[in-house]
Amino acid sequence: MSDPLRIHIEKVVPLTDEEFAIVASYFIGKKYKKYQFLIQEGEPVTYHYFVVKGLLKLVYTDDTGKSHIVGFAMEDWWESDFQAFYTQKKATMSLECIEDTEVLCVSLENYRKLCNELPKIERFFLEKAYFGFIAAQQRIISMMTSGTKERYNQLLQQYPLLVQRVPKSLLAAYLGVSRETLSRLSR
Amino acid sequence: MSDPLRIHIEKVVPLTDEEFAIVASYFIGKKYKKYQFLIQEGEPVTYHYFVVKGLLKLVYTDDTGKSHIVGFAMEDWWESDFQAFYTQKKATMSLECIEDTEVLCVSLENYRKLCNELPKIERFFLEKAYFGFIAAQQRIISMMTSGTKERYNQLLQQYPLLVQRVPKSLLAAYLGVSRETLSRLSR
Repeated sequence: MSDPLRIHIEKVVPLTDEEFAIVASYFIGKKYKKYQFLIQEGEPVTYHYFVVKGLLKLVYTDDTGKSHIVGFAMEDWWESDFQAFYTQKKATMSLECIEDTEVLCVSLENYRKLCNELPKIERFFLEKAYFGFIAAQQRIISMMTSGTKERYNQLLQQYPLLVQRVPKSLLAAYLGVSRETLSRLSR
Repeated sequence: MSDPLRIHIEKVVPLTDEEFAIVASYFIGKKYKKYQFLIQEGEPVTYHYFVVKGLLKLVYTDDTGKSHIVGFAMEDWWESDFQAFYTQKKATMSLECIEDTEVLCVSLENYRKLCNELPKIERFFLEKAYFGFIAAQQRIISMMTSGTKERYNQLLQQYPLLVQRVPKSLLAAYLGVSRETLSRLSR
């Protein structure tokens, strides 16, 4: 019962030992060092990742070469370039380690096999997808309506542990401001 | 087979006549006139809506009273204040008719009963949720990286029919610019 993936899934759907064995059989574990890439822009996206330990950033680089942070992921979060993963196209973003990171990975083929073999797992992924969508929509509203100071405070309120762990320069790239502006705001 | 909801669901999961009868039994039809509200900010959110015919706008009003358009919905799109709907809290947005609109509505209780009675429907909702999440993430990236002209062109490319149907003043409120700025851009 101490498996982090099992604890995480069972917050939504209960699993028997046999059912969790099925789930686990479709995932593989990988370890990455700080600064390593899990996904490289322009390369195929092989996996959907569950973070067991560590911290990741999802980065979009624009035509001028400027990096924008689309999201972070830490323990118990799921991350990938989902558009590229589900449509099996090349990555438009990169996924990089901010800290040494351990993940569990599922390929699209194995994800589909798992859903066919254990349909109740779709309820779990559905709940994750809804809450991912809701969080993205909240961020859109925040970007439309709030200044940087307010958005920093929202982030701090919603994800205090994340704000503590992420270097300030990366928080600035997430909020779309300079490191200096963020320093003034976070005083 | 000519039911628009059935055609729409069957793009993802095939249904027998009996299965579609189960789906249909959980939805009720409603008709609204242009300018009517399906969801009012501050009120409970009773339904998740499937648009059979018409055009809706999802509106967030900020503390200063300014309206921001979070999204549009037309035929074959699903819309609600999802956060309020799934958590059964009061609406933070309103959903309003831009045109006379016909919808099919499912309550949270009936949505859950439907998923329990016909688990394969969760695959359909899962696909919708993933693509909703991906679209929201693309919009975040676009807001972070692109100017208004570029964002207008992206919208035009992605949803040409929507851009034709939506009044320019509402497109401007979606893009976060004045009506005059949009007129210059869309020439």
